[in-house]
Amino acid sequence: MLLERSLIQSVGFRNVREGGEVTGFQLRLRMPSYRGMSASLIDGVVVRVGNLVDVPADVPRWTLQGREFSLAEVQRSEGVRWPLEEAAIVTVPHPGGLPEGAHEVEVELLLRMSYIPIEHQPSRFRETRHVTLSSELDGGPFRYGVSLYSHMHDFGTVMDLETAMAGIADVGATGIEILGEGHIPGYPEPSAAWIDAWFGLLEKYRLEPTNYGSWIDTRLHPDRDMTAEQGAAILQRDLRLAKTLGFRFVRPKIGVVSSDLIPHPIWTESVERSLDLAAELDVVICPEIHSPTPIKHPVVDDYIALIQRTGTKHFGLLIDTGIFQDRPIPLRAGETRETRPAFLDGIGVDPADLKDIGEYVVFVQAKFHDIDENLEDQQIPWEPVLRGLRDAGYSGYLSSEYEGERDPWRSIEQVRRQHALMRRVASAL
Amino acid sequence: MLLERSLIQSVGFRNVREGGEVTGFQLRLRMPSYRGMSASLIDGVVVRVGNLVDVPADVPRWTLQGREFSLAEVQRSEGVRWPLEEAAIVTVPHPGGLPEGAHEVEVELLLRMSYIPIEHQPSRFRETRHVTLSSELDGGPFRYGVSLYSHMHDFGTVMDLETAMAGIADVGATGIEILGEGHIPGYPEPSAAWIDAWFGLLEKYRLEPTNYGSWIDTRLHPDRDMTAEQGAAILQRDLRLAKTLGFRFVRPKIGVVSSDLIPHPIWTESVERSLDLAAELDVVICPEIHSPTPIKHPVVDDYIALIQRTGTKHFGLLIDTGIFQDRPIPLRAGETRETRPAFLDGIGVDPADLKDIGEYVVFVQAKFHDIDENLEDQQIPWEPVLRGLRDAGYSGYLSSEYEGERDPWRSIEQVRRQHALMRRVASAL
Repeated sequence: MLLERSLIQSVGFRNVREGGEVTGFQLRLRMPSYRGMSASLIDGVVVRVGNLVDVPADVPRWTLQGREFSLAEVQRSEGVRWPLEEAAIVTVPHPGGLPEGAHEVEVELLLRMSYIPIEHQPSRFRETRHVTLSSELDGGPFRYGVSLYSHMHDFGTVMDLETAMAGIADVGATGIEILGEGHIPGYPEPSAAWIDAWFGLLEKYRLEPTNYGSWIDTRLHPDRDMTAEQGAAILQRDLRLAKTLGFRFVRPKIGVVSSDLIPHPIWTESVERSLDLAAELDVVICPEIHSPTPIKHPVVDDYIALIQRTGTKHFGLLIDTGIFQDRPIPLRAGETRETRPAFLDGIGVDPADLKDIGEYVVFVQAKFHDIDENLEDQQIPWEPVLRGLRDAGYSGYLSSEYEGERDPWRSIEQVRRQHALMRRVASAL
Repeated sequence: MLLERSLIQSVGFRNVREGGEVTGFQLRLRMPSYRGMSASLIDGVVVRVGNLVDVPADVPRWTLQGREFSLAEVQRSEGVRWPLEEAAIVTVPHPGGLPEGAHEVEVELLLRMSYIPIEHQPSRFRETRHVTLSSELDGGPFRYGVSLYSHMHDFGTVMDLETAMAGIADVGATGIEILGEGHIPGYPEPSAAWIDAWFGLLEKYRLEPTNYGSWIDTRLHPDRDMTAEQGAAILQRDLRLAKTLGFRFVRPKIGVVSSDLIPHPIWTESVERSLDLAAELDVVICPEIHSPTPIKHPVVDDYIALIQRTGTKHFGLLIDTGIFQDRPIPLRAGETRETRPAFLDGIGVDPADLKDIGEYVVFVQAKFHDIDENLEDQQIPWEPVLRGLRDAGYSGYLSSEYEGERDPWRSIEQVRRQHALMRRVASAL
């Protein structure tokens, strides 16, 4: 498990209940010293939340190593520690709790150092940041999940699998989506120990595997094309591994043969050769409808034609919500509108188009790029998108795919904002 | 194991030998995509080093999953992968290798994506950064180590124990220093499994435990002082744990009672009560001489008096090289010379003062703050410092304590620079 770099962790910011009543809220703090220390060295923490909360240092309660204390109890304690590797949970009494959304949270943490002259004590550690409260809205009819794609570049540098799962569970999500070739050490043959650990973590964080991303790399070798037989073998390898790990959907990303992303013609035969296996495993193959491909497009027609022709229940459509993007992604340094692909300005598909294909949609990757501290998404219009999905009869997973700026740790808070936003929008439909 | 965020990793940049000849150099690259991939999708890597090296994409050789390939072999390979979690090693033929020091390294990595229109292929990933070659200088008479204190804030957020050890071993260091309360999960009672893992990693990376940092927190409770008996019990707890983990030195950080850091008077009795145990365990207790306390100071005289009075071989002096700082640490945002402690400008102790206390010096924490890409330290004058240590008869560890800016991952490259610098200076004495 790894902690976020900031003193105030995004993960863990939530209202708390006692006997059915919301009695306050809590947040997690990383030990800001270079060492862990005895809990009796804590001199308290001032907590402010916007203009809603301002409590002095002796009010918040402390949860350390699984036990809860008042400040006076912490200071009297013997043998209780705040380890470097473990966030402290600070609970602030606040009847009714905090409203849903992102809040500006400020803390001033007081720690008593023995090796600093007394006139400079206690040491004070201050931080202010916007963090998003775990939403308690139901958010139906949808289910909520997160793809580890959201944590691109964070995974393996500032985050391991358990850290990722803990963050997903903390927003009340129940589904985890992975990329086979990204998140399975030893792919395509993970060790039995890793598989055991995978199921152990799923149980610990009460998550279910949703979609498994795979690739059919049609350009696998520079000097030759891929045959349908080879494509089918690759797809079937991933179907089997996905099933082993408990996944119900597999999204093969198929190589393209044109500027507008027409898939390589082997896709049809590769898929058709794999439908019996998919049925046997009860895993649904679902290529993604991804910008710049809109819903009304020959590629989508071909996918639906395959379903109608074969009558399969194990092939369907995955919608990437990036197709609904209706405002541009800001240009990065050195980019101009002329040098980057036009579709990054957004292809603005009308979510009402979902109605025509609703019966074939089996999974949704909730692609997004930037949600501000007012929970306003800068690119994706969630109200019409979720309305369109609901009206199309979809009640499956909304699986977060954060695809914005890759500053370390940013993805964690962005996913929290998206879940709060999507649940609010869904609950108000 | 975690990777550095950058494409070009600091760890692993080194010259390579074949049959006694230096034939080139190598560096490690993190997979820049969001997934691992088949190695046959690699289209090569251009590598430039300052004005010394400029090789086209098909020249560097690839080491993946423990096997080395030419580009042509990689492209023909079946089943070989570049996993997301594993850096690729790129070896560049360059007879004689690169000179010692930090180099500006530029790479342009080419990967063939099947799902991007062919006219935009291969995808190009470019990065330029200064990285320091692992030094091959002997650096005697000193031995070289690293304290995990150097990785403050990185440890537990972007680095785990194995990542830290791999980085230490990669600079040719043989010693690891830790903070008991910082780097031992479950402190003060780590699990047997953790202890096994600790020794397993030491063996894997050929490291020996050097110094173990502990604290005697004299302000442990706000309402009462600590007795010498309590202080001794705390020190003895750490002596035992240090021994269990193989450490030979324990640095207790003792609470202070004055503005100029006079240690709490219980220190003498706490230490004297522990000398028999230290002898039994063969662990040396060594308080640090740390800025703003210079060498010629009553505190140091008292430490020496204890040694002379008791005749112990298990108490000595630890020199923190911060006392030799002769140029200021730059002011941080909001700081002024008036508001921050004057000693941060450097107390400039004359390294020649070491001569008088040489026989008592048992360990050196090589404190530093900033070394630029020309390997010039901005605060610590290493030439006189290492000369002073050598002339004082010291031939023990120089254990890096990086204490500069805490941007994530910065400590890794700073430690590499310090080791290259110290070895160069020591070898030229």
